[in-house]
Amino acid sequence: MTNQTLKLRRIGIDTYHENVAYLHRECAIYRAEGFQALSKIKIGANGNKILAVLNVVDDDSIVTPMELGLSEQAYTQLNANETSLISVDHAERPASMDAVRRKINGERLILEDFVAITQDIAESRYSKMEMAAFLVSSGQNSLDRDEVYFLTKAMLQSGQRLNWSESLVADKHCIGGIPGNRTSMLVVPIVAAHGMLIPKTSSRAITSPAGTADTMEILSEVNLPPDKLHDIIREHRGCLAWGGTARLAPVDDMLISVERPLGIDSQGQMVASILSKKLAAGSTHLLIDIPVGPTAKVRHMRQALALRKLFEFVGDQLNIHLEVIITDGRQPIGNGVGPTLEARDVMMVLENNPKAPEDLRQKSLELAGRVIEFDPDVRGGRGYAIARDILDAGRALDKMNAIIQAQGAITIDFTPGKHCFEVKAHNSGIITAIDNLQIAKIARIAGAPIDKKAGVDLIHKTGYTVTEGDIIYRIYAEFMSDFTFAKNLVTQNNGYTINTINPSP
Amino acid sequence: MTNQTLKLRRIGIDTYHENVAYLHRECAIYRAEGFQALSKIKIGANGNKILAVLNVVDDDSIVTPMELGLSEQAYTQLNANETSLISVDHAERPASMDAVRRKINGERLILEDFVAITQDIAESRYSKMEMAAFLVSSGQNSLDRDEVYFLTKAMLQSGQRLNWSESLVADKHCIGGIPGNRTSMLVVPIVAAHGMLIPKTSSRAITSPAGTADTMEILSEVNLPPDKLHDIIREHRGCLAWGGTARLAPVDDMLISVERPLGIDSQGQMVASILSKKLAAGSTHLLIDIPVGPTAKVRHMRQALALRKLFEFVGDQLNIHLEVIITDGRQPIGNGVGPTLEARDVMMVLENNPKAPEDLRQKSLELAGRVIEFDPDVRGGRGYAIARDILDAGRALDKMNAIIQAQGAITIDFTPGKHCFEVKAHNSGIITAIDNLQIAKIARIAGAPIDKKAGVDLIHKTGYTVTEGDIIYRIYAEFMSDFTFAKNLVTQNNGYTINTINPSP
Repeated sequence: MTNQTLKLRRIGIDTYHENVAYLHRECAIYRAEGFQALSKIKIGANGNKILAVLNVVDDDSIVTPMELGLSEQAYTQLNANETSLISVDHAERPASMDAVRRKINGERLILEDFVAITQDIAESRYSKMEMAAFLVSSGQNSLDRDEVYFLTKAMLQSGQRLNWSESLVADKHCIGGIPGNRTSMLVVPIVAAHGMLIPKTSSRAITSPAGTADTMEILSEVNLPPDKLHDIIREHRGCLAWGGTARLAPVDDMLISVERPLGIDSQGQMVASILSKKLAAGSTHLLIDIPVGPTAKVRHMRQALALRKLFEFVGDQLNIHLEVIITDGRQPIGNGVGPTLEARDVMMVLENNPKAPEDLRQKSLELAGRVIEFDPDVRGGRGYAIARDILDAGRALDKMNAIIQAQGAITIDFTPGKHCFEVKAHNSGIITAIDNLQIAKIARIAGAPIDKKAGVDLIHKTGYTVTEGDIIYRIYAEFMSDFTFAKNLVTQNNGYTINTINPSP
Repeated sequence: MTNQTLKLRRIGIDTYHENVAYLHRECAIYRAEGFQALSKIKIGANGNKILAVLNVVDDDSIVTPMELGLSEQAYTQLNANETSLISVDHAERPASMDAVRRKINGERLILEDFVAITQDIAESRYSKMEMAAFLVSSGQNSLDRDEVYFLTKAMLQSGQRLNWSESLVADKHCIGGIPGNRTSMLVVPIVAAHGMLIPKTSSRAITSPAGTADTMEILSEVNLPPDKLHDIIREHRGCLAWGGTARLAPVDDMLISVERPLGIDSQGQMVASILSKKLAAGSTHLLIDIPVGPTAKVRHMRQALALRKLFEFVGDQLNIHLEVIITDGRQPIGNGVGPTLEARDVMMVLENNPKAPEDLRQKSLELAGRVIEFDPDVRGGRGYAIARDILDAGRALDKMNAIIQAQGAITIDFTPGKHCFEVKAHNSGIITAIDNLQIAKIARIAGAPIDKKAGVDLIHKTGYTVTEGDIIYRIYAEFMSDFTFAKNLVTQNNGYTINTINPSP
């Protein structure tokens, strides 16, 4: 049902990952087609086609009955202009929803089903609701390990795949959940200084107070065109840029945009997400970090072990050399939480500053050492010492500075937010626990990661003995409203457990 | 985090069941809060609060940085005006999503969980994605019969409940899926003419070519204020109006708006949906019609029996007298499919026109008879004869005319759409099957129910012997584009199976 009389109009509304189309209620095509508000329609122009959710407009100043309005994203995606011939039609329901319905019924899906589903998602045929249906149906333990392998393979096929033409392309990945855990910004320069290729692209924070891309942005540009990124990696053996420009495993990003707001966490989906991204980036060797602790993503060692086995099984099927390291996730790593404060910590470690957080240094050396041991010329067990020598000799700092220059240096300013609140110990005793979730929440409410200078700076961590009234951490914020809200949150729960020391009898 | 400087603005965009808020990208509060496009925000004014999905605007003519725009529905729901003090905040994730996550993990939920979920849904705290997660997690066989009872009870509690102060308040309900099956418009006048109270409210079509409300709209007004509806029912013992104004079991409508586009069909959800609506409407006695056939919703007798048991179990728990009748769903009922054509069929039956479709008449009499037998004064088995006498004597027609007058008569015009296409038999033989799904699809594509005169008019049905080239049905449409599309669809598959008769040896 083509209609050539509608004129395209770009509507200045940002609808993020969801295309929205605007038709006037008096528009002839809207009336004829029997579209409903929120139903999905198919729009074609110049041989391109997109799918969009329909909003019905009653205001001529937004669209007239002779126009088809498209939100920013939809307009860009359609790649047409105001003189293009436009067709509007009912969107067919994606055929692969049949497989999703079979999964809802408890059936086991095969590779072809997962390929059909990821293709339909990649081509924007799924609504957010339909993606939620797929995620829930394949959530928790409802995917067996073969299905996780099929899903990973299908997601890998949904986008392009880089080939570095080298036999050893390393990467590291942490499953997340620990504030301040900015080890990638140390592992990459150390490993690259060793001469190993580590083309790590980073993500921005979604639910955490900072991602590696947010933090690196304090030191250099991170939004680089794929070609430039490629040249930097070739020359410097590593990079610390945002991965969003590369369009690797695009289905993963789309599923994450639904999974996160729902707060559903499926091990199978996580394994498929991580491995498809890394394989698409051309990695041949991968180190996975699983922190375990009572407020970490993985709370018990038995869960960590089950997750390790799943990573290993799928990794073996897809022919990637994969090692899993289970680390201490009982408290934040480093002192700063939030982009500016975390960047400061990283630079202090690289500069061998004696005030640098020792836990961040040690964990980074351990991870870097394990990555270096992927090198067949390195004897098992020697990686840590090689990494330490590289860091101590300043070669990691030199490499970091080279990467910063290559990506585009910016004026560095480690001054935190102008509003500062000192959180003090309620009682004397030993700090026995720091709640990762609460510290992350306080840093976010204070404005991180949008306000780069906002966050939390930890003064004392577990094992330290404090006296009542000692400052345990500081909160920084740029905006008064955020600052007030963060202070209120801290008075409810500051995230610290301090056990009073009983005098010996 | 309240901000009193934003001015409210009504945006002429219809976003159906989903509230949308529009903030300018340069708006201070948008920047400070770190909202993301598509995230959910809480808006307060004059003590009211609503939740809305955020769209970010780059066009000052839609909203300025000093304004908060709201879509039509959101503006109406907030019930504020341009001088109200507005607060904007992050929406907390609904607490009951924890129960949904437990259900995803395969746990059994208790009554309190379902109450918390339905309350959060009723107060618009769930996004479409979250509703999809709930529906999928409780889909198919994952609710046991106690959980279906809990869900029904919780949905019933989510809205108001009518009380007619009579000991026998009857209703009938068909689970749907059969085109032309407009029996309610015959059962209501027959039963009301018998003197029994039958306050049936009707729905509009969502995925079918006509609902009872769409069809009744050919004869009278159907959008009536609740007070007027109540008066009509009191005086005439029945009505045939649209139920949307009554706000009974509102959670049901919200779940349906997600369930339908997903195409997921859960028996537990269906039973809870139907029974909560009927109990909210004050029914004490209910007849459920389950059509069975290869292209009906229920395809096998064993499924129909399992569904009957589930209806009976939940009905008994909630103290409603419930009977289930399993009927023939192997082909459409009546001749017309589409509002005008179905209204014509109904009036022909009421007028005892010899050309009236006999199957519609017989099925309606059977259902009306069963409802009449709810009357303790009627001897078991006598209902059908009472119903037939009422219809034959013209008392049902009189009752229908009284209801039409009471609801507001309009000029009746049974002329179908101006474009007509005759579908002819491809071969000679006996019509052995008519595909309900295909006939419904053709009628919808032709324009029904939005274009009331569009639809399909069946000439011959199963069991009839046709000669090649005989007209088997006609398609009517008002708009040329719809007409062309419907004709194309019919050439692919006309929905009829005609078996050639082999000459006897």
